[in-house]
Amino acid sequence: MIKLLQIKEASKRIEKYIHFTPILTSSVLNDRTGADLFFKCENFQKSGSFKIRGVTNTVLQLTEQELEKGVVTVSSGNHGAALAKAVAKLGISPKVIMPKNTPKVKVDNVIRNGGEIIWCEPNQVSRNNTLNNILQKTSSTLVHPYDDSRIIEGQGTAALELLNQISNLDMVVTPVSGGGLLTGTLCSIIGVNKDIKVYGAEPIEADDAYRSLISGYIEKNETTNTICDGLRAQIGKITFPIIKDNVNGIFTLTEEEIIISMRLIWETMKIIVEPSCSIALAAVIKNRNIFEGKRIGLILSGGNVDLKNLPW
Amino acid sequence: MIKLLQIKEASKRIEKYIHFTPILTSSVLNDRTGADLFFKCENFQKSGSFKIRGVTNTVLQLTEQELEKGVVTVSSGNHGAALAKAVAKLGISPKVIMPKNTPKVKVDNVIRNGGEIIWCEPNQVSRNNTLNNILQKTSSTLVHPYDDSRIIEGQGTAALELLNQISNLDMVVTPVSGGGLLTGTLCSIIGVNKDIKVYGAEPIEADDAYRSLISGYIEKNETTNTICDGLRAQIGKITFPIIKDNVNGIFTLTEEEIIISMRLIWETMKIIVEPSCSIALAAVIKNRNIFEGKRIGLILSGGNVDLKNLPW
Repeated sequence: MIKLLQIKEASKRIEKYIHFTPILTSSVLNDRTGADLFFKCENFQKSGSFKIRGVTNTVLQLTEQELEKGVVTVSSGNHGAALAKAVAKLGISPKVIMPKNTPKVKVDNVIRNGGEIIWCEPNQVSRNNTLNNILQKTSSTLVHPYDDSRIIEGQGTAALELLNQISNLDMVVTPVSGGGLLTGTLCSIIGVNKDIKVYGAEPIEADDAYRSLISGYIEKNETTNTICDGLRAQIGKITFPIIKDNVNGIFTLTEEEIIISMRLIWETMKIIVEPSCSIALAAVIKNRNIFEGKRIGLILSGGNVDLKNLPW
Repeated sequence: MIKLLQIKEASKRIEKYIHFTPILTSSVLNDRTGADLFFKCENFQKSGSFKIRGVTNTVLQLTEQELEKGVVTVSSGNHGAALAKAVAKLGISPKVIMPKNTPKVKVDNVIRNGGEIIWCEPNQVSRNNTLNNILQKTSSTLVHPYDDSRIIEGQGTAALELLNQISNLDMVVTPVSGGGLLTGTLCSIIGVNKDIKVYGAEPIEADDAYRSLISGYIEKNETTNTICDGLRAQIGKITFPIIKDNVNGIFTLTEEEIIISMRLIWETMKIIVEPSCSIALAAVIKNRNIFEGKRIGLILSGGNVDLKNLPW
């Protein structure tokens, strides 16, 4: 478990470098779900996603020597772009290992922010081999996308802001992939108010966190055929135990349910969000028995979408 | 000229029925234009556009007898949807005359809000004939989309809010079609601070306001082949004289310039805006000599876009 104090320190550490993102509401979506929804708009965040929080918190704690030797990461897109943005002002170009099936818009974001892309096959083995190869050959520092307490502390600052912006929340829902955002959210919320329930939402097509929660052990994804390109990572060794002990549940959603929710958000709220965070609304719509009548925070984790390749 | 006091009264009259919309900024777009841009987000407004302001201000001033006899309007989409929304709570279904080439999403909005659609050909003659026919046959009241002081007062409330939200503006840019928004904006801004310059932006493909400003007389559009479905109307008899005497300039933009700006806003700001309001940013990008170094308010007039039919 990460202490609230650490997340509060992370919040102070990074506040100059990130946006304090707004909360949006929608009477149409409140009517549709029978609940009061409060959307934390990390799609408006610098680099287009919440990922800038964790990387900024981490990079600011690296030594000069570590920074001089360079940084490397593995990313499905948003983490890599955020890392590149965070270190660009230090004159550093990070190595970003990306699966070959990453959407072009996310590849472009990494390049535009100054990252150097190293391709791998779209599976965990190739990811790990490519990373180990680089770590052995160079003396770069790995900035892990989620399995690092500094990253988790950074991601937890989004929920900390949400709690300061909206009072009397009953529940919070976040997407879950590697688990950095969900774990940070859990640590923030338990630290502030144990009565607020926290749920994760995950595509059925990459439901390792859901299955791990049932078995009690880290389960693997054999395939990750989901439109949610930000939710294809493997649940982490640091994140999973915290999630297992504290989360109130993880919901799984079909591709169709995710796409319907994404379109609903675009059409009613007039904001651009990724499928990877539309899944939180999909979870609320699908599980009315749990969410009806509640005040619910939903973390809209990112807005980096290929506008030429929409799922409708 | 409409007095500031009337716009302030309109603002009080409608405030319960509309959203107080936020101002968004973008460091990327500031860098791109060399200016400080403040976007007034009427795309987040009830009914998806600023049009709810004018119709609410008008409908609230109709007599019970007028309301009983019904209301009718002509609309390229947003005004009709706003009128339907405004009178729905009174149990009234307005007749909305729409050109046959109106985008489906805007037709759907009118129907969803409870309006009854009456089709006309996509030209001014057919619009007028259809309207006159209904006015003669019924005793409905026309709620004009722009050429009515109550409408103009309502539209002027957006700029009034903008001035309260952002201090020290140098300039404001709005789209211009029939001229309701631009005229309301002019009246608000001149009433508050004559030093702030006000500009209109119009597609070259429907540039009647621009040509009228040059000739001094109301010029007609022969065709309106523009993607800006909200900017195809004819400049009005009430709006034009006020615009002519007060506007600092009207810029015309090509279809390509408009689409590039629309995509820029979607990609960098992560919000959904219509081509019809992206034109304001296009004007700022194109006329750097005028706008560079200035603090500029841009009214993002609406966000009702057919997500299945995007121009890229």
